[in-house]
Amino acid sequence: MSAECGRLYGLGVGPGDPELLTLKALRLLRAVPVVAYPTPEHGDSFARSIVAGWIAGHQREIAIRIPMRPAPPSAEIYDAAAAELAAELESGRDVALLCQGDPLFYGSFINIFTRLAGRHQIEIVPGVSSLTACAAAAAIPLVSREGTLAVIPATLEEDQIAARLAACDSAAIIKLGRHTAKVRRVLGRLGFVDNAIYIEYATLPTRRVAPLAAIEPDKAPYFSMALIRMSGRSDGRS
Amino acid sequence: MSAECGRLYGLGVGPGDPELLTLKALRLLRAVPVVAYPTPEHGDSFARSIVAGWIAGHQREIAIRIPMRPAPPSAEIYDAAAAELAAELESGRDVALLCQGDPLFYGSFINIFTRLAGRHQIEIVPGVSSLTACAAAAAIPLVSREGTLAVIPATLEEDQIAARLAACDSAAIIKLGRHTAKVRRVLGRLGFVDNAIYIEYATLPTRRVAPLAAIEPDKAPYFSMALIRMSGRSDGRS
Repeated sequence: MSAECGRLYGLGVGPGDPELLTLKALRLLRAVPVVAYPTPEHGDSFARSIVAGWIAGHQREIAIRIPMRPAPPSAEIYDAAAAELAAELESGRDVALLCQGDPLFYGSFINIFTRLAGRHQIEIVPGVSSLTACAAAAAIPLVSREGTLAVIPATLEEDQIAARLAACDSAAIIKLGRHTAKVRRVLGRLGFVDNAIYIEYATLPTRRVAPLAAIEPDKAPYFSMALIRMSGRSDGRS
Repeated sequence: MSAECGRLYGLGVGPGDPELLTLKALRLLRAVPVVAYPTPEHGDSFARSIVAGWIAGHQREIAIRIPMRPAPPSAEIYDAAAAELAAELESGRDVALLCQGDPLFYGSFINIFTRLAGRHQIEIVPGVSSLTACAAAAAIPLVSREGTLAVIPATLEEDQIAARLAACDSAAIIKLGRHTAKVRRVLGRLGFVDNAIYIEYATLPTRRVAPLAAIEPDKAPYFSMALIRMSGRSDGRS
């Protein structure tokens, strides 16, 4: 790492509404010579779309193409992306790597970060996460006072989800997608299905908020979430 | 609720760095005629201090004084605050209630929200939470891939903390304050004390990041947190 090397910014750009960008992310986005972002093999980058109105046009853009299959992507995909970004940094250019939501909260940024940490200067700019955006969209308290919160990927097996739900007062089950029917089954078995609120695209015009019990499970997109508060547990009145 | 009533905005202003305000929070803060915020009985409001540079001066300000004792504050404190805000709303004025971090993530906003929801129009603007701000300050992944995250108040009893730590891959133990020695004892018992990073004032100039094992436990402020990743559990390589 040399003083003349550029700096990598892991830039949280929030959950989707361009207005949920922070002032810091906006300042850095405008200042850097290179903007990088993950994007599917075919189609547009969601992270880039959030800040598209703020990208000046004179900046170099690096699209990190991440195929949908296999999931998770192979290590080589991230090795190559990290090498491409490292080359920019070693040429003395600062790079902003756009991260939807927050970079360190289930972000694919983590795959780049673990490859470059220790060898390059990295600054992480936290962003509004899907977790709090979904609670705001549903207008329900996420967790309060002495309550504990569990964040649980829907990709886990039924028994794993059930075990984690048993040890919290509030839960967010994320990335519902094709796992929605399974999640509803687990919640039904535990008696919590009527406590579960479903949210998709929390801060976008296509937002949908509904009881989880009312959802057609095969239509839930990957970016959807269920928020559950277990009544009668220890987090007090509110 | 009448069409002529004002709207209450629960405005997340982020964890402390004024630059971590969102564009949306800034727009609304400048637009509303009334700005409210919690403040201790003596001393300044932390939430207001975050956005002090953006308060225009022509706005009416309502300081909601919350005594430190008893903790939690009596219901009457929030009843009175809700009534004062309701009077503004009923006079047709929009009110921005400033919330450090995110309004629905352990926010005292929840106490006002539960009193006014259903009777007034309320819009919640999510903010950057202390959770992701602390991970960014420590430059460690909070949670990734199929990992589960538990958020645990340090005020819980040892056995409750231990039970919740047993059911996650990553944990954030929040509001350490005078509970720091107890938390370190629990983590030591479970063999995780060397995995724990301590963070205080994550986004302020007074920020401190250190191994939890290296902290003098009686000096941790209320706004401090330990982040723990349990190695060898199920959240994969990164």
